[in-house]
Amino acid sequence: MLTFALMLQAAASPAPAPKAPSEIVAAAPAADWVDIAADDLLIMQLAPDAAGKARRVLIQLMPPPFSQPWIANIRALAKAHWWDGTSVNRVQDNYVAQWGDATEKKALPDGLSKTSEQGYAAPSISFGRGAPPRDAYASTRAMRGWPLASDGRSSWPVHCYGMVGVGRNMSPDAGSGVELYTVIGHAPRHLDRNIAVVGRVVEGIEHLSSLPRGTGGLGFYEDPKERVPVTSIRLASELPQAERPRMQYLSTESATFAAYADARANRRDAFFIVPAGGADICNSPVPIRKRP
Amino acid sequence: MLTFALMLQAAASPAPAPKAPSEIVAAAPAADWVDIAADDLLIMQLAPDAAGKARRVLIQLMPPPFSQPWIANIRALAKAHWWDGTSVNRVQDNYVAQWGDATEKKALPDGLSKTSEQGYAAPSISFGRGAPPRDAYASTRAMRGWPLASDGRSSWPVHCYGMVGVGRNMSPDAGSGVELYTVIGHAPRHLDRNIAVVGRVVEGIEHLSSLPRGTGGLGFYEDPKERVPVTSIRLASELPQAERPRMQYLSTESATFAAYADARANRRDAFFIVPAGGADICNSPVPIRKRP
Repeated sequence: MLTFALMLQAAASPAPAPKAPSEIVAAAPAADWVDIAADDLLIMQLAPDAAGKARRVLIQLMPPPFSQPWIANIRALAKAHWWDGTSVNRVQDNYVAQWGDATEKKALPDGLSKTSEQGYAAPSISFGRGAPPRDAYASTRAMRGWPLASDGRSSWPVHCYGMVGVGRNMSPDAGSGVELYTVIGHAPRHLDRNIAVVGRVVEGIEHLSSLPRGTGGLGFYEDPKERVPVTSIRLASELPQAERPRMQYLSTESATFAAYADARANRRDAFFIVPAGGADICNSPVPIRKRP
Repeated sequence: MLTFALMLQAAASPAPAPKAPSEIVAAAPAADWVDIAADDLLIMQLAPDAAGKARRVLIQLMPPPFSQPWIANIRALAKAHWWDGTSVNRVQDNYVAQWGDATEKKALPDGLSKTSEQGYAAPSISFGRGAPPRDAYASTRAMRGWPLASDGRSSWPVHCYGMVGVGRNMSPDAGSGVELYTVIGHAPRHLDRNIAVVGRVVEGIEHLSSLPRGTGGLGFYEDPKERVPVTSIRLASELPQAERPRMQYLSTESATFAAYADARANRRDAFFIVPAGGADICNSPVPIRKRP
């Protein structure tokens, strides 16, 4: 029981102003940040924009157990410099920006992995202590640095803004990884378990999300001149050490992440008057930064 | 109980291929479409793009009981041609594009309505038969043509992609309606009940969502030259009959909408192999079309 003196003290020392999610992340200790390995980082260069400004997009590849046959292909295609000279061919508003070989005739390197739609989900990962929050689709939790969902039997990465997936033709074709897209609108969660999710844009998504929308079906550019050239895609591990971009993500197992997610779900910083009392997995994106 | 003959017949007549949501909407009878009244439709003209192409954005205003003081102001501002010569000043990736008077000094017309943060939500609307689906935030349902949420005590419109809201300063300021934004990314549902939602873009959102992102704080353009001029904003009712755009939305109370929402939550058309078993309210947007 609080004594009267203690109660007075509590009243006299107002609680510090609640922090915004960004302030919580900014105060994270260095140990809460995880380096993205150079072999997990793709560097996509688009042709410069109309004003001559460079356009670089960085993509982090997913860790096991998710989508590894496609990711093996993506690493092989990057090492073969296969995407150099391809293009962004499709930009559909509130959906995806997609790049690859518009001719669909470019020869593929040997030895690509076989893929199957069985690989869209992985054996179930335990979500650990406590009931994982359920949204309109599944139980979800940010774990191992990624937004994941589970139905108790299997687990899968979810299609949030900025996530990268593998274009494919009709089932049972599962795509090889040569056609990639990123989400530039509201999370198209109906694609979960129907497409391989292989990574996420960690820098430069604005170079894709702000492109003119294609006026053809599904947002494909009708005039080939509208396509945006992909100058190159490289694994960071192919660059000299000094030229590699260094990116980090906030450990989803850290106390900082727990505080961040709680603050995203219950905004108490000065602008807000009604905390939402929840947040869907895609509205609490895993924080990313350049390594300081 | 099925007789053997009936069972054989069933096996011999395969069910028709399940329709995609877009096919269900395309097959809607004319009576399922609701005209948007000319007094509920704003026409925003942006300056032509670099190639000289016109950029028109159409915005539908919300019906009662939601946000009516702000909507009265918006009609008054449009009738006063107040926005003519203002600009899009802020484009923040995966968040909002915002327009208004960058100088914040332009004189306002007389007689604007008083607004209060009490108006962000309205008395609860009955969601009708059946348990409304609950997402990570609230119970939600598309009703009266709009995506709505409820906690049983009050109801409010939700921040989906393309919804239009009222910029404001710190609480208790609730904004007047002179600064407007639209959502160009994943639904920022933490803004629900913290900001007045006044409408949605029903045509031309790509002219806002594909603008270059601002490099200043919160996505504001740092160089005034980056701002995109707003040439005019007019109510369709101010135009001669022959010049008014005619838009319609699909009645959310129609059988077509129910079939559409079910198909969005359980994609069975040919591309899909695993139906999601659900969809959040913002991933089943109310269909909009030009009146045929």
